[in-house]
Amino acid sequence: MLEHIGSPADIKQLDISRKYALAEEIREKIIQTVSQNGGHLASNLGCVEMIIAMHAVFDAPRDKIVFDVGHQAYAHKLLTGRYACFDTLRQAGGISGFTRVGESEYDTVCSGHASDSLSIALGMARARDLKGEKHEVVAFLGDGALTGGMCYEALNDAGQSKARLIILLNDNEMSISRNVGAMSRHLTHMRQSSVYRSMKQFVRGKLQRLPKGGKGPVRVLSGLKDALKALLVNDLFFDSLDIEYLGPIDGHDIAEMERVFKNARNYDRPVVIHCVTRKGKGYAPAENDPAPFHGVEAFDVKSGKSVEPSFPSCGKEASAWLADKARQDKRICAVSAAMLSGTGLLGFAAEYPDRCFDVGIAEEHACALAAGMALSGMKPYLALYSTFLQRACDQINVNICLNKAPVTLLIDRAGLTGRDGETHQGVFDLSFLRALPNLIIGSPANLYELKRMLELSLCADAPFAIRYPKQLPDSDAVCAFGMGEWSEVKAGGDVCLIAYGQMLLETQAAAAFLEQRGINAAVFNARFLKPLDEDTLKRIAHTYSHVFVFEDCVCAGSLGEAVCAYLQRMRSAANVYIKTVPDMYLPAGSVREQLNMCGLDADALAAYVLEKTETFK
Amino acid sequence: MLEHIGSPADIKQLDISRKYALAEEIREKIIQTVSQNGGHLASNLGCVEMIIAMHAVFDAPRDKIVFDVGHQAYAHKLLTGRYACFDTLRQAGGISGFTRVGESEYDTVCSGHASDSLSIALGMARARDLKGEKHEVVAFLGDGALTGGMCYEALNDAGQSKARLIILLNDNEMSISRNVGAMSRHLTHMRQSSVYRSMKQFVRGKLQRLPKGGKGPVRVLSGLKDALKALLVNDLFFDSLDIEYLGPIDGHDIAEMERVFKNARNYDRPVVIHCVTRKGKGYAPAENDPAPFHGVEAFDVKSGKSVEPSFPSCGKEASAWLADKARQDKRICAVSAAMLSGTGLLGFAAEYPDRCFDVGIAEEHACALAAGMALSGMKPYLALYSTFLQRACDQINVNICLNKAPVTLLIDRAGLTGRDGETHQGVFDLSFLRALPNLIIGSPANLYELKRMLELSLCADAPFAIRYPKQLPDSDAVCAFGMGEWSEVKAGGDVCLIAYGQMLLETQAAAAFLEQRGINAAVFNARFLKPLDEDTLKRIAHTYSHVFVFEDCVCAGSLGEAVCAYLQRMRSAANVYIKTVPDMYLPAGSVREQLNMCGLDADALAAYVLEKTETFK
Repeated sequence: MLEHIGSPADIKQLDISRKYALAEEIREKIIQTVSQNGGHLASNLGCVEMIIAMHAVFDAPRDKIVFDVGHQAYAHKLLTGRYACFDTLRQAGGISGFTRVGESEYDTVCSGHASDSLSIALGMARARDLKGEKHEVVAFLGDGALTGGMCYEALNDAGQSKARLIILLNDNEMSISRNVGAMSRHLTHMRQSSVYRSMKQFVRGKLQRLPKGGKGPVRVLSGLKDALKALLVNDLFFDSLDIEYLGPIDGHDIAEMERVFKNARNYDRPVVIHCVTRKGKGYAPAENDPAPFHGVEAFDVKSGKSVEPSFPSCGKEASAWLADKARQDKRICAVSAAMLSGTGLLGFAAEYPDRCFDVGIAEEHACALAAGMALSGMKPYLALYSTFLQRACDQINVNICLNKAPVTLLIDRAGLTGRDGETHQGVFDLSFLRALPNLIIGSPANLYELKRMLELSLCADAPFAIRYPKQLPDSDAVCAFGMGEWSEVKAGGDVCLIAYGQMLLETQAAAAFLEQRGINAAVFNARFLKPLDEDTLKRIAHTYSHVFVFEDCVCAGSLGEAVCAYLQRMRSAANVYIKTVPDMYLPAGSVREQLNMCGLDADALAAYVLEKTETFK
Repeated sequence: MLEHIGSPADIKQLDISRKYALAEEIREKIIQTVSQNGGHLASNLGCVEMIIAMHAVFDAPRDKIVFDVGHQAYAHKLLTGRYACFDTLRQAGGISGFTRVGESEYDTVCSGHASDSLSIALGMARARDLKGEKHEVVAFLGDGALTGGMCYEALNDAGQSKARLIILLNDNEMSISRNVGAMSRHLTHMRQSSVYRSMKQFVRGKLQRLPKGGKGPVRVLSGLKDALKALLVNDLFFDSLDIEYLGPIDGHDIAEMERVFKNARNYDRPVVIHCVTRKGKGYAPAENDPAPFHGVEAFDVKSGKSVEPSFPSCGKEASAWLADKARQDKRICAVSAAMLSGTGLLGFAAEYPDRCFDVGIAEEHACALAAGMALSGMKPYLALYSTFLQRACDQINVNICLNKAPVTLLIDRAGLTGRDGETHQGVFDLSFLRALPNLIIGSPANLYELKRMLELSLCADAPFAIRYPKQLPDSDAVCAFGMGEWSEVKAGGDVCLIAYGQMLLETQAAAAFLEQRGINAAVFNARFLKPLDEDTLKRIAHTYSHVFVFEDCVCAGSLGEAVCAYLQRMRSAANVYIKTVPDMYLPAGSVREQLNMCGLDADALAAYVLEKTETFK
């Protein structure tokens, strides 16, 4: 049946039993595709019925649907004309794992980072009202997104605005891993509380029939009826922000959801509909343990096991190092923002639950929290993905760097990151980090260097950012290095190649290729990006006429620009050639494919050097 | 008496009447100092009694006090050994207008941006508990800070953590201008609600004496007693986040506050104490109209009028232009984040209240809201200070630039900004903005150029950032320019000087000085920072051997670095010299003093060119 659903209009024709059958087909398609391409599994399986009910009631694309994060929109994609190309999910040239404006008229916004849907949707609702249009605006978000302060900012604004806005809250009791924070506990409590339900019944029923007047408590109670209603019927949190609250309802009961969604259209102000769903629903391995099935690589459907052996990640290496050192050093603690699993910190968290703080999707708070701990003598390690660190530029600047708080930022997924595409590349962090005073920035090229930088961080009385990709090779040839030191990893007299992080291997391979073509290239490992290793740079300035800098980040604010400016300051006559990620948002693909797209793989780098050496011969 | 208060210990010795007398002396000192030096007036006058009561009860510096924003800490400074140097407030070499770690052991953190105190304080509380220490941690914040999502992230974390933390909420019913959002209305409602007070009384008193059992409503009520207590006694919002709530109490009643603050020490979890104060208290002009007295220049105490004539600001110019165009163009709307006054938008807001959205101290939401509006066909102008824009790097990136949403960012206070010091300089925005794909960045050098860029923004179907200082000169010689076009404002054959924004005038003056010394310098106005004007740059590359770039931003990610990299790519033999703000946090001073500190005033620039031309002769 799924292949015949061309648009949401087709769903509206189905009777309820066929809607459930459709849900099963969608689940099957999602499981099969994600098992091959990787992707977000558990969250997408959980909200299939919600999305069917949503498209059955609302009239997209006339009604605007805004997905938060967008990684739970697979069913939406399958129901809006993308069944035929769904196999290309997250592939180079294929459809995105998130909503993308260019991909379909049903995708109203390019998404990828959590907690932004309410702001976007409120903007669309206000535009609608200013233009005198009449359609609905529907925000679809998970409970995890509610831990982000941006959601609260939007709710605060929406609550006073009285703009018509429908918020579908997909509450699966966890975001990426077990949800944290008082808000989450509060939702859980409400769901479970029989007191809550009986209060609702009581107020809805008996209180309305109370006589006016009376004696003693009854009289007082009667006078407070309206106030009590407001207090008891609506959810505390949403009510305090003047948001209408409906629920909780079963997020797998399509008929009930359709009834409530239709009802929601009658409100003249923002309304949140609280749907409770089961993450991973319909796929036993994910239902039983959803966290590992949040974002997955290709896996075997029968066993649920990953088909590729998982390489030791940088995050896990850092976590193991932290756990090891924490035994002796009581100052060591760790902070993350709903990314304990992704950043590899689960091991540390298990061993030191009292010294590991997962604050939810709250990067701003995470940074300032770590600053507060550091200012009080602790040694916090703050693990975040590069792309989410963007949420905390101000806090890294004001709370950490201005205060010279010795926080170590463990910046995971730095550089090219692959299949999550445009919104998840770690190619911008260097540009804003390099601008900040007092900050040391390192980028290890292998696991040994990562550990060495962690060692150095222990003694650093300054903020220290260590940025690394998901995985790095082990190193056979280790050389100890001090803070700020680059090193020459291959000697060569013709040209100088500078790289760091995951680009070092590509650059070494390019140098080997150049050797065969008669060009003797030196390779420098620029493992510290701030401050610059001026001694080595001076040597380079005086030795080489042609200096190449290869990086998997954008050019503006790159090491290449810094090297360029420095050599100019030294009055060096050397020509500097910078090869970076182009000034565009990189679509999905494997890291290898992205290196190719950018001309940053070893072959392309060698060809680039050859081309330049041709022209300057 | 004030001059004899050496530390908070001295306050503890005073009886209540002398504490009130002390409050009056503090107010007098603050009014007198701010009238001369400028600074934050209304907020500081409002919380004098709160700070006296705080220092009377708590034991700083053993107890850690964390001020939010820090611009309401003047009384704190006067009571912690800084009376003698208070006259140097906000002066070059003087004490800061915010809390600064290096300034006093009573300042626990360098502050300046709103909404971060709860995160910092929670970090300090956790460090205390991990280290087995026993002191109190006290966060002092205004109600305006509560509109920032970061506060909510911290409350959400604090609520579940059960860490002991005392939050003093200074509720003056407005942040910088009239407070916005549902949260604010909620606090106001609570304060005013007799129902609320009577409920509290009712629950505290009568309900506790209710008999178990009984009939009808009484029986049901009895069974719900505990639940009702929880619902009614505590504030809805804080209660939903598991934060203990005490108040509201009179924030000018020192004795009452001391009683409640002492009581707060007995809680084993986070507790918020809601104190209601009057902004500007004790100075009639500020009490009557506090908004203009938030941050002020020097003023006449008697009249409350500014002693210097106020020059037309860039923000007001932009606002007037917007209002003018908005009559015809119904797409135009404006968004700001608690900065309507500072960004000059009050005029537009008065004329178009339905098309102007002040979202509170919520930059993240403001950016995504504007993106949503732009994606729905509106033409939003988002006015923020450069330094606060840092709060929204991710949203500018993902919500605006990735979506190619035609939002125009009006970035006020870009470049050197003067007396607010380290936390308020607009010297970082270019580094992160230049890294973003799809973004146009302009920086006008005079009011004509500002208006011309605004004209261009109307037709731009892309995100457009226009960054400008508080004030720019009018221009006599106007030349129309297209998108992305630089221009040569002075011809010259010896060296090439490139500048933009408020640095153009300094650079022109430097060129005039150089002329007298026999050096014929060309001056280029690089009014677009992205994309680069490659035609002009190519011409520069082929014409000049020595190119100087002068900017009032940090070097990393600057135009200078971009020019350097571009000329290298062109294989230009020109030497590039970049002169920028140094890699440090700039302390307070006038903009003129800061230009001097950085070697960016006309004389220093000319000397720099002379020095370099000497060496290359």
